[in-house]
Amino acid sequence: MAKKITKREKDYSQWYLDVVKEANLAEHSPVRGCMIIKPNGYALWENMQRQLDDMFKETGHQNAYFPLFIPKSFLSKEAKHVEGFAKECAVITHSRLKATDNGVEVDPDSKLEEELIVRPTSETIIWDTYRNWVQSYRDLPILINQWANVVRWEMRTRLFLRTMEFLWQEGHTAHATKEDAMKETLQMLDVYARFAEEYMAMPVIKGTKTESERFAGAVETYCIEALMQDGKALQAGTSHFLGQNFAKAFDVTFQDSDGVVKSVWATSWGVSTRLIGGLIMTHSDDSGLVIPPKLAANQVVIVPIWRNEEEQSLVLEYCESIQQELKEYNIRFKLDDRDQYKPGWKFAQHEVEGVPVRIAVGPRDVANKKAEVARRDTKEKEFIDRDKLGKHVIDLLDEIQTTLFETARKYRDDNTHYADTYDEFKEIINEKGGFVYAHWDGTAETEAKIKEDTRATIRCIPLDDDTESGKCMVTGEKSPRRVLFAKAY
Amino acid sequence: MAKKITKREKDYSQWYLDVVKEANLAEHSPVRGCMIIKPNGYALWENMQRQLDDMFKETGHQNAYFPLFIPKSFLSKEAKHVEGFAKECAVITHSRLKATDNGVEVDPDSKLEEELIVRPTSETIIWDTYRNWVQSYRDLPILINQWANVVRWEMRTRLFLRTMEFLWQEGHTAHATKEDAMKETLQMLDVYARFAEEYMAMPVIKGTKTESERFAGAVETYCIEALMQDGKALQAGTSHFLGQNFAKAFDVTFQDSDGVVKSVWATSWGVSTRLIGGLIMTHSDDSGLVIPPKLAANQVVIVPIWRNEEEQSLVLEYCESIQQELKEYNIRFKLDDRDQYKPGWKFAQHEVEGVPVRIAVGPRDVANKKAEVARRDTKEKEFIDRDKLGKHVIDLLDEIQTTLFETARKYRDDNTHYADTYDEFKEIINEKGGFVYAHWDGTAETEAKIKEDTRATIRCIPLDDDTESGKCMVTGEKSPRRVLFAKAY
Repeated sequence: MAKKITKREKDYSQWYLDVVKEANLAEHSPVRGCMIIKPNGYALWENMQRQLDDMFKETGHQNAYFPLFIPKSFLSKEAKHVEGFAKECAVITHSRLKATDNGVEVDPDSKLEEELIVRPTSETIIWDTYRNWVQSYRDLPILINQWANVVRWEMRTRLFLRTMEFLWQEGHTAHATKEDAMKETLQMLDVYARFAEEYMAMPVIKGTKTESERFAGAVETYCIEALMQDGKALQAGTSHFLGQNFAKAFDVTFQDSDGVVKSVWATSWGVSTRLIGGLIMTHSDDSGLVIPPKLAANQVVIVPIWRNEEEQSLVLEYCESIQQELKEYNIRFKLDDRDQYKPGWKFAQHEVEGVPVRIAVGPRDVANKKAEVARRDTKEKEFIDRDKLGKHVIDLLDEIQTTLFETARKYRDDNTHYADTYDEFKEIINEKGGFVYAHWDGTAETEAKIKEDTRATIRCIPLDDDTESGKCMVTGEKSPRRVLFAKAY
Repeated sequence: MAKKITKREKDYSQWYLDVVKEANLAEHSPVRGCMIIKPNGYALWENMQRQLDDMFKETGHQNAYFPLFIPKSFLSKEAKHVEGFAKECAVITHSRLKATDNGVEVDPDSKLEEELIVRPTSETIIWDTYRNWVQSYRDLPILINQWANVVRWEMRTRLFLRTMEFLWQEGHTAHATKEDAMKETLQMLDVYARFAEEYMAMPVIKGTKTESERFAGAVETYCIEALMQDGKALQAGTSHFLGQNFAKAFDVTFQDSDGVVKSVWATSWGVSTRLIGGLIMTHSDDSGLVIPPKLAANQVVIVPIWRNEEEQSLVLEYCESIQQELKEYNIRFKLDDRDQYKPGWKFAQHEVEGVPVRIAVGPRDVANKKAEVARRDTKEKEFIDRDKLGKHVIDLLDEIQTTLFETARKYRDDNTHYADTYDEFKEIINEKGGFVYAHWDGTAETEAKIKEDTRATIRCIPLDDDTESGKCMVTGEKSPRRVLFAKAY
């Protein structure tokens, strides 16, 4: 409930954990670093999945499924990939347990010849497979996506934002030309940006990562970056142009229409349950979760109020007709007619769980042919005539979706700064947080120094061209454009 | 393509593998025992998932997600569960790799204090979680399902039917009373039976497993059993009444409305990608895959035929209007207007991939205001007037769905036998295969002897009461009813 939630102002980290807990989204599991996604949290993920999946299919992709396990040797085939992923990971070394007097133990006789790694990402096993799928230019492009769980051994975890196991989708495409692969990379970045803005109501900035922040094995990593309410950035999705790195590592070639044998061009792109963390930190408030209507499992909750049986049947009948109407409008709703809870308790629960619109109906509303409609985002309430209710609610859901986006964009813009000197930069990063546009000389050394000094990183080199050339705030060297800095999750 | 498919009569096992390969459903992966589910195979799974998920939600269930990893010690908490599952499994012992001169090796310093097991099923981790979720009778029932991957270390694998990793759903529910839990168990058995029969067009027999075939930790295991075209049975889904076994092992209690603290009652139920194997072996033929329309990604493929550009634009325009109409009928279809393939090649591909209905349109059809409609199951073709096409196709899809079920049921009935003596039983099992109803004395010893002698097992003790009492065919002891025997996958 809301009163159990720490105020954002007081402790943002604790506020986040409180919202996750009180809105019943997720909890820690007995396996350190792994989370249990509770029904409310999973319903958010399902709605995100459904929408993204539609967008992937509209752009010509099909789903497939590749193995959870990757032979250890695969990880070292792509030179840079191994640096990024052959580190902290879950290693399977044995295939059998045996019973003992006090439990079970690993059977030493079941040691594997080659250890298996639980996939941290699937480029290697997928490109090993594509070798057999591609012979001719006619076999290209391959446009495949996979919904899966992946594991990266993390010790400092945070529900949704950083967990050892997480759910995600990973697209892996193969193309005949560099141009096609680049077009795909940018197309999927646009899909992610559109999803973030239109569905999550979370404004994002599109850009490329610097070399040091690039995906291990990519030629170029594109990303979308969002700003959270505490002034820290969240990388919300990445789309990688992999060049021919994986094709060469796994020997994936094709005979082109000109008869020449060439290496295949690749992309990969992914978003994960991390998005749920981003959604929480973009919209929620000190009363709990706020969900954009387009992703809410229930966009509306109807709470009937009665004191006796006569009122109950009167009110429930009235609610029945409201339900019929909401159904006709294709609004997702639930009726909360639980007997054992009082209306006030229900109100508090739906508020902390973020249901966008609440309709409350008591005997007086029935008599007046009205209903009380409350919106979660602004907490405004008004009495609406019954005959205008359906239309009102559908418009209100639209308005909430728009308001959430506009509010988040305003916050983002209000917290976007320009720094021209390093002192100014450090002051903004330390005092205010937020996004900071500044000039950088393009070297990894300067980037590392800034990170060392301030903990801020280059979130991306934005794709927009709304910038001027200048001089690096640290070294004074030439800079072709401002890049985007922030402290980040 | 069809000519690459071994005839069923010649070698049923090879036929199965050929269909899986030629219909592009799945293939083996470099990790022994794991499969790669290709887009056509995954599309089947997606359609199954969507339908089952709707049925789960209609019966009040919500989805959630629990960790992939289970601490080793959890497996030994439930006495019988440990016997069943703490055997062949994927054991994670280390959490880090380190680079060496020629690749990567497991870092011995990263040895885990307690090994983790990749979940073979999730009862233990879920019931460990439910302990914190349940205090009062008000917290019950918990009706949760999870879509997930699981791993059981299998060495003799067969695509879809038996693989080391597979995809499934596992429902795990918690109830205040035995009656509620039993009602849930039977409800989900009915959901599975309905799904198998109405969507997969696969007739099933519902029953209980004998003690020796029961799920490790269950009080009673209910199952649905189907008969494949080679006379072998396939267990297609199970629903377990777990009694209070897991509640007691994980100390999950609640205060009932009478104030008394009691142990919670449990069920679990699951179906997996194995169903795809069942679907293949129920309907497919020597020309390849046959898919029931309700589960087909594309229920209809439209193949336009032309020899020159003029014909092409004429035919494609005509196809456009057909597409419009199919859309209005909510029929899932695709237009195969690929330029690089000849119509005959396309026909062969759609046949082997099992698209239920093919509409072919050439210039003459345009002139005659007709289209050639071919059904995959019977291979019948007819020319249909354009103005009757949409209605014809929607009726035809219904008819195909019905015909597939009726054909499968007839095959099942024709291959269901009654044996009164053990000699008769052995002869049927060895010569004809199929389902055999026979009397059994109810002992594990007799069951084991029959399995030893014939490789047939008791598939289930059917729930129907269409049987008489008699004498065990092996021992002559009393038998209250006939049980269902078969060799099985």
